[in-house]
Amino acid sequence: MGRDKDTQARAGRMSTPHGTIDTPVFMPVGTQATVKALSPTELEETGAEVILSNTYHLFLRPGHELIRSMGGLQEFMSWPHPVLTDSGGYQVFSLADLKKIQEEGVTFQSHIDGAKHLFTPESVMEVETALGADIIMPLDECTPYPCTYEYARESYGLTLRWAERSKRRFEELATDRRAPQALFGIVQGSTYEDLRVTCAEALVSMGFDGYAIGGLSIGEPKSTMGGLIDLTVACLPENQPRYLMGAGTPEDLVDAVGRGLDMFDCVIPTREGRNGALYTPEGRVNISNARFKEDARPLDETCGCYACRTFSRSYLRHLYNTGEMLGPQMGTLHNVNFFVGLAKQMRAAILSDTFVDWRTRFLNQYCSTTTKECDT
Amino acid sequence: MGRDKDTQARAGRMSTPHGTIDTPVFMPVGTQATVKALSPTELEETGAEVILSNTYHLFLRPGHELIRSMGGLQEFMSWPHPVLTDSGGYQVFSLADLKKIQEEGVTFQSHIDGAKHLFTPESVMEVETALGADIIMPLDECTPYPCTYEYARESYGLTLRWAERSKRRFEELATDRRAPQALFGIVQGSTYEDLRVTCAEALVSMGFDGYAIGGLSIGEPKSTMGGLIDLTVACLPENQPRYLMGAGTPEDLVDAVGRGLDMFDCVIPTREGRNGALYTPEGRVNISNARFKEDARPLDETCGCYACRTFSRSYLRHLYNTGEMLGPQMGTLHNVNFFVGLAKQMRAAILSDTFVDWRTRFLNQYCSTTTKECDT
Repeated sequence: MGRDKDTQARAGRMSTPHGTIDTPVFMPVGTQATVKALSPTELEETGAEVILSNTYHLFLRPGHELIRSMGGLQEFMSWPHPVLTDSGGYQVFSLADLKKIQEEGVTFQSHIDGAKHLFTPESVMEVETALGADIIMPLDECTPYPCTYEYARESYGLTLRWAERSKRRFEELATDRRAPQALFGIVQGSTYEDLRVTCAEALVSMGFDGYAIGGLSIGEPKSTMGGLIDLTVACLPENQPRYLMGAGTPEDLVDAVGRGLDMFDCVIPTREGRNGALYTPEGRVNISNARFKEDARPLDETCGCYACRTFSRSYLRHLYNTGEMLGPQMGTLHNVNFFVGLAKQMRAAILSDTFVDWRTRFLNQYCSTTTKECDT
Repeated sequence: MGRDKDTQARAGRMSTPHGTIDTPVFMPVGTQATVKALSPTELEETGAEVILSNTYHLFLRPGHELIRSMGGLQEFMSWPHPVLTDSGGYQVFSLADLKKIQEEGVTFQSHIDGAKHLFTPESVMEVETALGADIIMPLDECTPYPCTYEYARESYGLTLRWAERSKRRFEELATDRRAPQALFGIVQGSTYEDLRVTCAEALVSMGFDGYAIGGLSIGEPKSTMGGLIDLTVACLPENQPRYLMGAGTPEDLVDAVGRGLDMFDCVIPTREGRNGALYTPEGRVNISNARFKEDARPLDETCGCYACRTFSRSYLRHLYNTGEMLGPQMGTLHNVNFFVGLAKQMRAAILSDTFVDWRTRFLNQYCSTTTKECDT
C-alpha cells in the first residue's frame, strides 16, 4: 500500500476469491451480467480487474437462483475475475414503479412486467449470496437531490438499521457461499454534514469489509461533493477500501482519488461510448462531428486499444453515422480502456510519489479544450 | 482445382491483389463497409476470406470519393483481404424510392435523404473503381419474381447492353486503379430458360473475369432455381468462377455447390444472428426458446468459435432476452463461422472425392429436426 505525500491519495491491493484488485480502480458497469457491447476477452484487454453488476436487474432476469445453478455470476458470464454487486436499492428507487418504503423493506413493481416484489435487507443478502459476487452491498435508500434535512435524517436512520440487519443475515449465510464474499457498508446522509459523519461512524462501529459513499454524484454541486467526501473519509479506517458509488467523469475520479477514494463505477464510458462521445487525453469528443469526416488519424494516438490501433476517426464516424453496431462496440471498448487506464495511471503516480504533478498535467491537457465535463 | 467425380462440384482458387480465395466460398455481407457486429479480427477468426460490400450504400454514405481518399475500401475498413462490391442495382430496385429505368441508366431517390441520383453502367464502374474492391459487378436489373416473359425479355436485353457498356468503361478506367480489379458478368432472365441461356452465352462471348447468376433466391420454388442453375452453368466456361448472388440457406449452398457454383453471399447468418436464429449441424435453433433457460452446454459442441468456446446456451438466451448487444454480437460471430465453415467443409470433401457422402451426412443431420429451412 502506497500513500501520496501531498494528498489523501493512496494505492492499495484487495484480495478476492477471483483475484486481486489494485486500487485506485475503475469498475466498468455490467448491469445485466454483461458490460454492454464487450466480450469478456475485450474487457480483459481494457485492463479491467473488477466489474459491477446489478442485483435488481439480475433478480428480475434471469433470476438469482438460475445464476446460482449455473455456478454463480462469474461462471455464468464467463468473467473469471472479481465482480461487485450493488444492492439493487438505487435501481428500485430510479427504475421500478410504485415503490413503497417501510421499515421491513421496499415493495416495488418490476419495470419489465409490473410484477410486485419485496426487497428486505435480508432478502437482498440472500440474492447476493446466490449471485456470488466477490464484493456485495447491503440494501440502502439512496436519497434524491435535493432532499430536506428531515427526510435525509429519517432515511439515513433506516439505512443504518438496514445495514445492521444486512450484516446479521450476511453472517448467517456464511455456509451457503461457494466462496467468501466481502460486505461493504454504505454511507448516506444526503448533503448534510452531521448526518454523513454520524452515519459513517455508526457503520464503522458495526464493522464492514469496506465502505462506500452513496447518494453523491446525483446532481449536487461538485464543491458540495468534495467537502462531503473529505468529511466522510476522515471517519473511515485507513486500512480498508473506500468506494465512491456511481462516480463519475474523469475529473471526478481524479478529484476523488486525491481525497482518498479507491474504487469507482460509472455508466459514463459505456453509455457515452454507445452514443459516440469518446474520451481522449485532450477531452471528450463527439466522433459524429463533421470535422472528423476525412480524418485518417486514430481517435487517440497515445491509446493502445484495438479501436485506436485499427481504425481511423473517419471510419469510426462513418460507423456511428450509419448506425452500425461496430461503432458503439469500438467506442465502448475505447472508453472503458480510457477510464480503466486513468485509474491505473493514478495508481502508478501515487506509487512513484508524483500524483500532484501527474494530476496537474492531466487536467491541463484534458481541460484544454471546451468540453462539457470540464465544468469544475 | 479439384473436381468431384459424381457431381458438378469443384474446388478452385482465385488470386486477387488482397490474397487468394479458395472456393467454394461463402462471403459475409458487409453492406456499409462493416459486417454488422463483427470487428475485422473477429471476421478473420471465422475463416472468412472475402466479404461483400454494397456500392449503393457506400455511394450514399460515406461516398466513394471519401473512400478513395482513405486508400480504398480495404484500408478504410481495416480488412486487408479480398472484397467484392455488388453493382448497387439490387439495392436501387429494393430500397430506393421513385426509381425510373431508362436505356441510359436508373434514376432513383436515396432512401436516406430523398436526394435524386442517376446510376449508369459507366458511373457505377467509376464508383466501384474508386472503392477499389478486388471483384466488382456491373449495373444490372434484378427482375422481381414473378415476372412476365415480356418484361424479363426487355430487362435481360437491357442488362446485356449495360454489361457491354460496363466492360468498355471498366477497361478505360484501367489507369485509375490502385490495383487490378476483376469484373464479373451477371446472368439474368428471370425464370425463363431460353432467356437465361441466351444471356449467359452473350456474356461469355463478351468475356468477363467470372460469371454471376442474379435474380434467383428471391421467392421462386427451389426446384425452379435448381433447373435454371444447371442450364446456366452449362453455358459458362469451366475455368472461371461462378457466383450465385444472394444465396442462401445452408441447404441452398449445398445444393448449388453440387451444381457447380463456387461463390455465395447472403445476409442470413448476420441478420438471423442478430435475431437469435442460430445455425448448428442439427439445424437452426431459436436461442430465446425457454428450453435453453437452464442449458449449460455450448450452443454447438462441435464449433470452435469464441461464442461456443466461452458461453452457455443459458447465458446466450439471457443476452437476447434482455436486449443486450453481446447477444447479437456472439450470434453473428457464430453464424458467420457456421456459413464460412460450411463452404470450407464442402471444399475439403470435393478435394478428397467424398462430396456426395459428405452431403448425405450433412443433410441427414441438418434436416433431422424440424426447422424452417428444411423445406426442400
